[in-house]
Amino acid sequence: MSTVLLLVSMSLDGYVAGPNVAADEPMGEGGERLHEWMFADPSPTDVELMARTRAATGAVVIGRRTFDVGLRHWGDVPYPAPSFVVTHEQRPELAQESGTFTFVDGVPSAIDQARAAAGDRTVVLMGADLARQALRAGLVDEVFINLVPVTLGGGASLFAGLDVHLAPAEVISSPAVTHLRYRVVR
Amino acid sequence: MSTVLLLVSMSLDGYVAGPNVAADEPMGEGGERLHEWMFADPSPTDVELMARTRAATGAVVIGRRTFDVGLRHWGDVPYPAPSFVVTHEQRPELAQESGTFTFVDGVPSAIDQARAAAGDRTVVLMGADLARQALRAGLVDEVFINLVPVTLGGGASLFAGLDVHLAPAEVISSPAVTHLRYRVVR
Repeated sequence: MSTVLLLVSMSLDGYVAGPNVAADEPMGEGGERLHEWMFADPSPTDVELMARTRAATGAVVIGRRTFDVGLRHWGDVPYPAPSFVVTHEQRPELAQESGTFTFVDGVPSAIDQARAAAGDRTVVLMGADLARQALRAGLVDEVFINLVPVTLGGGASLFAGLDVHLAPAEVISSPAVTHLRYRVVR
Repeated sequence: MSTVLLLVSMSLDGYVAGPNVAADEPMGEGGERLHEWMFADPSPTDVELMARTRAATGAVVIGRRTFDVGLRHWGDVPYPAPSFVVTHEQRPELAQESGTFTFVDGVPSAIDQARAAAGDRTVVLMGADLARQALRAGLVDEVFINLVPVTLGGGASLFAGLDVHLAPAEVISSPAVTHLRYRVVR
């Protein structure tokens, strides 16, 4: 049975994107600081963690906006696994080097299909809107937060309006970021 | 030279008190959940950490509201050390079993007096308003967050309107809460 893992980078003030998201600033003002730990000279701890996540991922569910923004950056599926994009639009599958994007209407259906594809491995959820919909629907087993020690002062709050109960499961600290894995308590 | 340490319990959505703070609900709605890890059967890790903090504390600076709310709960100074309460009101010193409350006008002056009293030991700051004033004034050396895995959905945001740069210094995880110590980057 696969685990559905919500994987996000979040600021200390609880934002997963900065204010004023725009086409040329898809992470909002200052929001790209949430991802610097991955790209700008990542520490051995972070490199190992990213490799571990990659190896454990059996399928991915991606919010539509994250897909639109991420595709040119990834140049492929984000993880080498079947990838399900949530959108109302009907689109044919889109094959990439390491997997295929399948376009699915509705979060529950996308997660169901991803579970079936993942087997025993992890289903990774990517995208703030998707994350909130999946949390609200009780479809998330674990939340993995890369807690970045910056403040954004506004933007997309991961937890706004949600009443989520989490239990700490694992903490991995690196010089740049603290990785917090929680189980969702139902 | 003493270290000025801001010590707070914070929800995953960045709040240090819940919404609608009132006299009979001083932590706001749901806000008391931020402190349950200390009182309701704390884990050995948390007990040891609290003892370590207590031993390292050379002086305390307390916001006025935190003092008003906390006094009957502590029944003493909050830590066995000289304690400086920030208030415009002129009041005589108030001796307690393990230390004395001194009432000081202004955050910088209170922190100065606390530094002088602490010697080489830590100056602990307590209180959300005080925390924000001290962070804004650049008077904080370290931020120690007890990150509690609950969401409050609103209330007093520790970092709202502040642009704070922190560097991870230490992480201590217990079954109930994750303790994050950061250095303030100036």
